[in-house]
Amino acid sequence: MRKDFIALDWGTTSFRAYRVGADGRVQDVVSAAEGILAVKDGAFEAALERHIGAWDVTLPVMAAGMITSRQGWIELPYIPCPASAEDLARALHMHTTASGRRIAFATGLSYRAPNGMPDVMRSEEVQVFGSLDLGINHFVTPGTHSKWITTKGDQLIRYATYVTGEVFAALKDHTILGRLMKPGPDDEEAFAMGVTAALEDPAGFLHRIFSARSLGLFGELAPEAIASYLSGQVIGTEVAHAIRDNPKDAEYAVLASPGIGGRYVKAIEIAGLKVRYGDPQAIVKGLAIIARKTGII
Amino acid sequence: MRKDFIALDWGTTSFRAYRVGADGRVQDVVSAAEGILAVKDGAFEAALERHIGAWDVTLPVMAAGMITSRQGWIELPYIPCPASAEDLARALHMHTTASGRRIAFATGLSYRAPNGMPDVMRSEEVQVFGSLDLGINHFVTPGTHSKWITTKGDQLIRYATYVTGEVFAALKDHTILGRLMKPGPDDEEAFAMGVTAALEDPAGFLHRIFSARSLGLFGELAPEAIASYLSGQVIGTEVAHAIRDNPKDAEYAVLASPGIGGRYVKAIEIAGLKVRYGDPQAIVKGLAIIARKTGII
Repeated sequence: MRKDFIALDWGTTSFRAYRVGADGRVQDVVSAAEGILAVKDGAFEAALERHIGAWDVTLPVMAAGMITSRQGWIELPYIPCPASAEDLARALHMHTTASGRRIAFATGLSYRAPNGMPDVMRSEEVQVFGSLDLGINHFVTPGTHSKWITTKGDQLIRYATYVTGEVFAALKDHTILGRLMKPGPDDEEAFAMGVTAALEDPAGFLHRIFSARSLGLFGELAPEAIASYLSGQVIGTEVAHAIRDNPKDAEYAVLASPGIGGRYVKAIEIAGLKVRYGDPQAIVKGLAIIARKTGII
Repeated sequence: MRKDFIALDWGTTSFRAYRVGADGRVQDVVSAAEGILAVKDGAFEAALERHIGAWDVTLPVMAAGMITSRQGWIELPYIPCPASAEDLARALHMHTTASGRRIAFATGLSYRAPNGMPDVMRSEEVQVFGSLDLGINHFVTPGTHSKWITTKGDQLIRYATYVTGEVFAALKDHTILGRLMKPGPDDEEAFAMGVTAALEDPAGFLHRIFSARSLGLFGELAPEAIASYLSGQVIGTEVAHAIRDNPKDAEYAVLASPGIGGRYVKAIEIAGLKVRYGDPQAIVKGLAIIARKTGII
């Protein structure tokens, strides 16, 4: 028998809770900028109740994200890849709050690349487990730290983190590259120009980005277009590298809303690959799958 | 007949003046953090006299750097590459200050890469013209925006800017990669590890740098070593790209003091190439060469 539950995606900079019906549909969403770093003195329970206090306390809560990291509510050890939703379900950590809510915390996955470098994630794996019914094996979760994830059967076998969003913001706000920028609407042409430059010279990142200044200096790029151009340079650099070991006919799903997701879809298309949008709320589906495996719902 | 003169290197963030004897030796140096961006309301003459007012007003001044840019004292148009010291000498802009100092301003060089991207520099070309007697053709000027410069005969034929120093600072101070860092002495081993990782996967910059966090999280890199490791990642990325079109037996001169210069020498050595230090004060020699060509000294 399936039941209603609460899906909780509590990350570094944002809190998002979904009240989910027995049919899997999202009935209500609470979204707040109160990420785990904004919660002082470990007052996570108080923060949770502030946001979802109005929701039935008997509904089981399925939680994922940085909330299970060292800076979070309860630190849970990573599970190494390859791993399946089954593995996450087996490692759920059950907790009952003072107000009587039952929370099942799902941990994240670690990965050791062939060159020995470790990688970490918390929550993107749940999005992917919630997206396996797309029938494809390559997933992208854009963001501050985007992840490129590969699956095989029901297992997540490898992934790589790219510091793309954060690097773009740092370049824009804290280097000379932002100086000539003026605010403006997204400029698709400038973005595509940046992506193309990146695809043509993937290793030239530290040199190529200087053109965001020099093109501006020479009046060859409008101040309002520079941010889009630089965004294309950065995302294009990520795409060029992330696709390098995959078959040319691989198909990618971008698990994001059209805003940031649209830039990735566009960049992947410019690289000549097949791409579609996945469900930006796939984490709800993923948490439901894990909850069902354990009889929580 | 040769004469004493004053060499002035006035950049974005720093002011440096050298009193040079007829024998070419530097007799005195004034160095200050008063770069052109720190000079308000165009009060360049007052700033100059504040720093070198004690020096004989009849000595000719040879000036280079961002002082001839749009934000500087007198904006001079770039000369396109290829260009020689002779070309710079012919384009000198003569100016006499209210106090009677005669200043010859040398402009910078622009370059249009084969892919159409423009590049700009002001002052590094003078360092290179002052270093041609090394008898090699490849020069590196490390810094906020480092330049890799190629010469042929007495001409500077091409160059590329890398935003390396500024990107490193932005990553360290404004992204998650700096969070686990603790101050410590330069860690040569961690630096070399970063350079090697970059040389092995030049296009993976946005992914590789995440290891500055993940290695720290897993306790595989000491907090005191993370900054050196990230520096190796960034400089290694620059080196891997900058050398790609040059012959394998090319020899490079690093025009910098041992501090930052040492990191570049090390990284270029790890890449298996020939490298030596050039004169970190080569700009003095370069300005003297230009001054002699015009009879200023």
